Formats: sequence, structure tokens, C-alpha cells
Amino acid sequence: MNTKKSITFIGAGNVATHLAKAFFSKGFNISQIYSKSLTNAITLANKVNAVPIHNLSDLTDENHIYIVCLKDDVIEQVLNQITIKQKLIVHTSGSIDMNVFSKEGFENYGILYPLQTFSKDKDVNIDEVPFCIEANTTENENKLVGLAKSLANNVQLINSDQRKKLHLAAVFACNFSNYMYTIADELLVKNNLDLNLLKPLIIETANKIKDAKPALMQTGPAKRNDKAIIEKHIQLLADSKDYQDIYKLITENIFKNS
Amino acid sequence: MNTKKSITFIGAGNVATHLAKAFFSKGFNISQIYSKSLTNAITLANKVNAVPIHNLSDLTDENHIYIVCLKDDVIEQVLNQITIKQKLIVHTSGSIDMNVFSKEGFENYGILYPLQTFSKDKDVNIDEVPFCIEANTTENENKLVGLAKSLANNVQLINSDQRKKLHLAAVFACNFSNYMYTIADELLVKNNLDLNLLKPLIIETANKIKDAKPALMQTGPAKRNDKAIIEKHIQLLADSKDYQDIYKLITENIFKNS
Repeated sequence: MNTKKSITFIGAGNVATHLAKAFFSKGFNISQIYSKSLTNAITLANKVNAVPIHNLSDLTDENHIYIVCLKDDVIEQVLNQITIKQKLIVHTSGSIDMNVFSKEGFENYGILYPLQTFSKDKDVNIDEVPFCIEANTTENENKLVGLAKSLANNVQLINSDQRKKLHLAAVFACNFSNYMYTIADELLVKNNLDLNLLKPLIIETANKIKDAKPALMQTGPAKRNDKAIIEKHIQLLADSKDYQDIYKLITENIFKNS
Repeated sequence: MNTKKSITFIGAGNVATHLAKAFFSKGFNISQIYSKSLTNAITLANKVNAVPIHNLSDLTDENHIYIVCLKDDVIEQVLNQITIKQKLIVHTSGSIDMNVFSKEGFENYGILYPLQTFSKDKDVNIDEVPFCIEANTTENENKLVGLAKSLANNVQLINSDQRKKLHLAAVFACNFSNYMYTIADELLVKNNLDLNLLKPLIIETANKIKDAKPALMQTGPAKRNDKAIIEKHIQLLADSKDYQDIYKLITENIFKNS
């Protein structure tokens, strides 16, 4: 007898794929996979033994939970088309308020926000992904916490306000860091150098935050206010006003806060 | 019979400590450790069975190589006080030109630049540290490549111009990334949230560059020009003009280059 809950996914992108596979591997029944692209629905459905659909009217109301893994800007319009309003439904976004569900008339809803960046072809160790939970009732909250704990160890209750600030912090820590890597890569390529030279340093810099607050690990010319080097760097960036501006602004900030 | 070269370190900070211990563990004889602080010289010397000194006039000329691991802004003045001018001498800095040695009358010199961030109490896997080599003659170059290869696998010839650009790229990839972590940490603390929530994401973001160019891995509101979220984030940063400015400038750049 299958005592595990059954789950339907609305969306078949990276987040849906990683979550569906993770729940499937833990013995959950994945019921339906919806995507507006039937091909995408089929691709994921095949991996988790589910039924692919590409019309929201084909959603069955027999599932325990509906997980919406869609781009932020389409969540509301898709919710508007879902007519099953009583069952527990969640989204996985860092920045969309939970009240998007009440606005669309849902009765049982919440957030299941996995704080990780999911790539198409790269496995993620789901146990270590922090899950942020919010729900409209304590009962739903308990259900979602239980669900998340079946996948991962770090499950926390985070309200919508906190979640937005967490998402903002993640933009700095991840999106902007990645852009710093991008600038570095471009500077290297221009000079016939290879990013491989910097990879160990980049990974060590990230790993250091496991042990100490990043403010304490700050190094470099800005930190020690080494004006001669800073001036040379600004000159070396003479052919990119944009990178010069970024260099100056961040350097100034690091120095001010040192 | 000990056929390994003997090495003297000028400096007893993080770089000297990691390199001296690494060479010592590979069977090199570490002859003297100089630091202007005798305490620091003794601390490192005890770890590598060397003689601590705190006067440069006590340097003996019996060693094969002298490795200068000092802060950029004191390298030249320390070199000026070293009277042994014939033996092979190198520094480990990313940004100081090799001609600092010729200016000070040295005859055999070069660069041994380990591209890694060394912390006092954190072991580094030295095999994986890229070493950048430059020297004033092919013979010295060969000696330094051999020396570096006895520690690490990725040893490359990099001239002073390239090294400066590599260092500039490292400032973006590492110093500035770390500052992005610092801002994130501060935003979290202000909102009673914990950086632990973001650690897996930060480390995964860094690890992704092993597999793909960072420009291809860019995600987030700036990348998809999600104006609603960007506007909300700018509002959330209302109490920090500095962070707002950084957010705006990097967001604008990511969007422009997408």
C-alpha cells in the first residue's frame, strides 16, 4: 500500500525537474506534470512515471499537493486558470508573496522555496538544500514542513517579508558574485589567460564562508587601501568604462566599511 | 645525502607559512625564516626546522633560493637591505613587477606567484594551487618551474603584464565576490536571518564555473530584466544608499551584457 502523498507539478523547468525527481526517488507518487509545452511535460513525466498534460483544465483534483514551479511573471496568470481551489497548493519562488494565492481564491496554500540554483544537467545534493516554508494555516505549515523534511535537513519557517529579503541577499551573494566571475573571465580571455587559473581561488573564497563571516575574510587592495595598486587597476580597465565604474564603486565601499 | 634544494623565506605570514610547510613536507631543507618580528620568525621556523632571524644582515648566502613573501608595499625596501645579490631570489606577489629586483641590483630573480588565498588556520591543498612563474633568464625560469612542479600540478609561465591582469581579474572574482557575500550577510543579520541559509547556494554558484563559462550561468532578476522585482529590491535597500548604488550598477551591467 502506498502511503506516500501524491504530488502534481505545474511547470517542467529546472526547479520542477529537480524537485520531482527528488520526491520520486523518496517514494512519492508524482501524478501529473503540466507544462504549456507538451514536449517538456513529457520529458519530465517520463522521468518520474507521471502523466504529462499541457492544458490546465486536465488537472485532476485527486492529488495531495500541487507544486507550482514557474517563472515569477507567469505565476499569477497560471493560478488564475486553475479551478481546483481547495487542495493544498504552493509555489517555489523567492520573491512572489504568498497572498497571490488568496487573490486567486485558493483556500489552502503556502510556499516551498528551495534556496538553491538548479541547472538542467547538474545534480544537486537535495539533502543539503535549505527549504523555506510558509503557509496560510498551521495545519498546512505542518504538512509542508513534513514534506520538505522528507527531502532535506535544513527546513525553516520564513515569512513572505523575510523571504523577499533572503532573495535580495541571494541576488548579491550569487547573481552578483557570478557577474564578478564573468568580468574576471572576460579580462582573462582578452589577455590570453584561462579562467582555470582562477578556479581554485574562486572556490576557496566561497568555501571560506563556511568557517567565518565574510566581512572578516575580506582581502585585497581595497581592504588595505593600497592606492598604488588601485590606481593601476583603474588604468588597466581603461577600455571598459563599465568595469571601471564597478571597480571604483565596490573598492570605495570595501574601504569605507573596513 | 640530501639532494633537495635549501630555501630561505623572507617573511613569516600566511603565504610564507603555507609555502614553507609545503616545501618542508616535500623534503626541502628550509634554512632560515626572516621576519621583522622575531616571534613570528620563531613560530614558523619551529614548524619547518629552520633558523629564525629578524635582521636581514643575518641572511646566509648558502641557500639555493630566497623566497620573499611580504606585503607589496614593503617588498622594495626589504630588497634594498638584502646584500646577497647573486643567488636566485623571487617574490610571490600578484602585482609587483619583476623589475623590482633589477632595480635593486639582483642578478638572478623571478616570480613564484601562487594563485590562492591563504588563511592562517585553514589548510590548502597545495597540489591544486596554480603557480605562475616568471624569471629573468631561461635557466632561472627552468629552476622555478621545477621548484613549483615539486609542489603543484598547474604551473604556468606568466609574464609581469599578464600577472597584473590576472591579479585584477582575481580582485573581481574573489575580493569583490567576498564583498557581495558580506553585503548579503549584513542584509540577513538585519532581518534575523542566518547566512547558513545561503551557504549551499553560494558554494554551488562558485562550483558551477568548473563546468561552464560564468556568463552562461548568469541568473536572477537582472538577467531576465524583471523590472518589478528589481524595483522592489531597490526599495528594500532604501536604508543603504551604498548598497542601492551597487545593486543598480551591477544590475544595469548584467542587463546590458545579456
